Amino acid sequence: MSLKQQMEIMLPAIEAELQKQVARLDDVATRPFHAMLTYHMGWTGEGAGPEARGKRIRPLLVLLTAASCTSPVWLHAAPAASAVELVHNFSLVHDDIQDNSPRRRGRPTVWKKWNMPQAINVGDALFVISNLAIMDLAKNFPPEKVIRAANVLHETCLALTRGQFLDMSYEKRSDLTIEDYWPMIEGKTAALLSACTQIGAILGGADDSTVEEYRIFGRDLGLAFQVQDDILGIWGDEALTGKSAASDLVEGKNSLPVLYGISQKGRFAKRWAASAVRPEEVVEVAQILKDEGAYKFAQREGARLTDRALSALKKSNAQGEAGAALMELANKLLHRES
Amino acid sequence: MSLKQQMEIMLPAIEAELQKQVARLDDVATRPFHAMLTYHMGWTGEGAGPEARGKRIRPLLVLLTAASCTSPVWLHAAPAASAVELVHNFSLVHDDIQDNSPRRRGRPTVWKKWNMPQAINVGDALFVISNLAIMDLAKNFPPEKVIRAANVLHETCLALTRGQFLDMSYEKRSDLTIEDYWPMIEGKTAALLSACTQIGAILGGADDSTVEEYRIFGRDLGLAFQVQDDILGIWGDEALTGKSAASDLVEGKNSLPVLYGISQKGRFAKRWAASAVRPEEVVEVAQILKDEGAYKFAQREGARLTDRALSALKKSNAQGEAGAALMELANKLLHRES
Repeated sequence: MSLKQQMEIMLPAIEAELQKQVARLDDVATRPFHAMLTYHMGWTGEGAGPEARGKRIRPLLVLLTAASCTSPVWLHAAPAASAVELVHNFSLVHDDIQDNSPRRRGRPTVWKKWNMPQAINVGDALFVISNLAIMDLAKNFPPEKVIRAANVLHETCLALTRGQFLDMSYEKRSDLTIEDYWPMIEGKTAALLSACTQIGAILGGADDSTVEEYRIFGRDLGLAFQVQDDILGIWGDEALTGKSAASDLVEGKNSLPVLYGISQKGRFAKRWAASAVRPEEVVEVAQILKDEGAYKFAQREGARLTDRALSALKKSNAQGEAGAALMELANKLLHRES
Repeated sequence: MSLKQQMEIMLPAIEAELQKQVARLDDVATRPFHAMLTYHMGWTGEGAGPEARGKRIRPLLVLLTAASCTSPVWLHAAPAASAVELVHNFSLVHDDIQDNSPRRRGRPTVWKKWNMPQAINVGDALFVISNLAIMDLAKNFPPEKVIRAANVLHETCLALTRGQFLDMSYEKRSDLTIEDYWPMIEGKTAALLSACTQIGAILGGADDSTVEEYRIFGRDLGLAFQVQDDILGIWGDEALTGKSAASDLVEGKNSLPVLYGISQKGRFAKRWAASAVRPEEVVEVAQILKDEGAYKFAQREGARLTDRALSALKKSNAQGEAGAALMELANKLLHRES
């Protein structure tokens, strides 16, 4: 089976498990509360549908990893797959409040549609349900394994709060260097992807050294993914044309190319320090940054991390069609154009 | 040993465990983040000290319950005791944002001292650490028991988000009845206290029916405690004199006496529906509410719940000095004047 065929089987299973988990709040007294969660998950409300759900990459990684290990009963790992996706979505709901973002996946964010106090509680509830979901593994796995998987998830969430702290505290700083970049995205992006592959491998019955290779695969995949995201955020089609407000330069994001540009102390650094970049300047400032070598640098870093990720995946000896699909997914994520 | 003597041993153990748990964020890159958590916990910053910490009633309940069961190794339950206190504090940090409260335990709240985005993250981190803390039970208990305790904690957190939703959605409603009161405080107050006694009993080695009695004891203690709180919030010394802004009547809180008053459709109901109660009216409105029977009603409800709590505690057959201390603590909580 190709990646596409496996996704056709796994994605509905993921969606069903997620709906089952979130249904814990579906009772008479809290029905409007449940509706806030199902809205955010992309199942209900105006604009509901696949576009509003996101790609479910993380739960897919859990299931494909489990399936690529010796024990192929990937469906048993579904509660863990839903747990990581719920953690991801809890962090998005709180992120949108913290960043004051009015829209997410083409729709109003939860705080915008309801209000900030309710949205904090919606994020909290998604987080709580992720904890309950991971414990549901006890139906199919021995308790030691459940505890091991839960600990990986909880440590990952701690890393998420660390990354979030760094991200927010960087906003006011003008002395950032490239060294400040890695710990931030380690927490914000890489930790959760590494949890996906690590938990998938634990549940798939991999031995300790194989779990470790899968963990490294997930982490480096996450780091490479973020670098790619940073490149697209400045030089991608959407950033440069049409919706130029979508440019990371306008948002003032401390992305890898920007931190590289600052380190060069040239025209870009001067422009960046002076004032916020306006939408109509985006094309020009992006070109200055490219001329000073930031594009090449970020491309090189991305390629280095991609190589590291794929080499860890090879060492993990991912098996069968799921193993091939995992390789295909990684390649797709790392070479995307949008 | 009296309650006082046991508290002198247990409280420092609780504080040490809490500090150890929160120290997970104590590293170079996240030191300012760690400082936000230790500030909220009452250990650092201006005004740090016992007053800023709260009474640590919840972790004490966990340890006393564990000690009053057959297995007296209460210190092994310390990670669970810290977990419930961390959950309590996570909910306080988010609560303060949601209620727009500038002060807590005599000090500026986290969102006021730093800002709202950081405070959301501080609450999230306390919550994550509570998850890690409960998993630490695995050092001293078999994995099945850890999972059971963790599930109680997670279900409790879900109830907390339910209670929080109800509380916030009640703010705009004018058609509330006494029936709406119980599900709200079940989630906001009773769920966590019942988790304390339930988890304490599980870790203390109690059999299932005894765990159930302890659970009921904790829940009814929580309900009775909240009713008492509601009475003091209107007719307590602080509510009626001096700091009259501290009156629940001024805050517009949907407390039990208020909901009773509304149901009477008399002078109080008319006054309540008309406009917010001003500080200078507090004494008069409290008297009207009392004249209409709300004080007597709330006292009777409180007494009924207190009886139910104490009778469950007796049925649980709480043993030894810890059992006596538990009874003393319950009596103290239920007959306090402030």
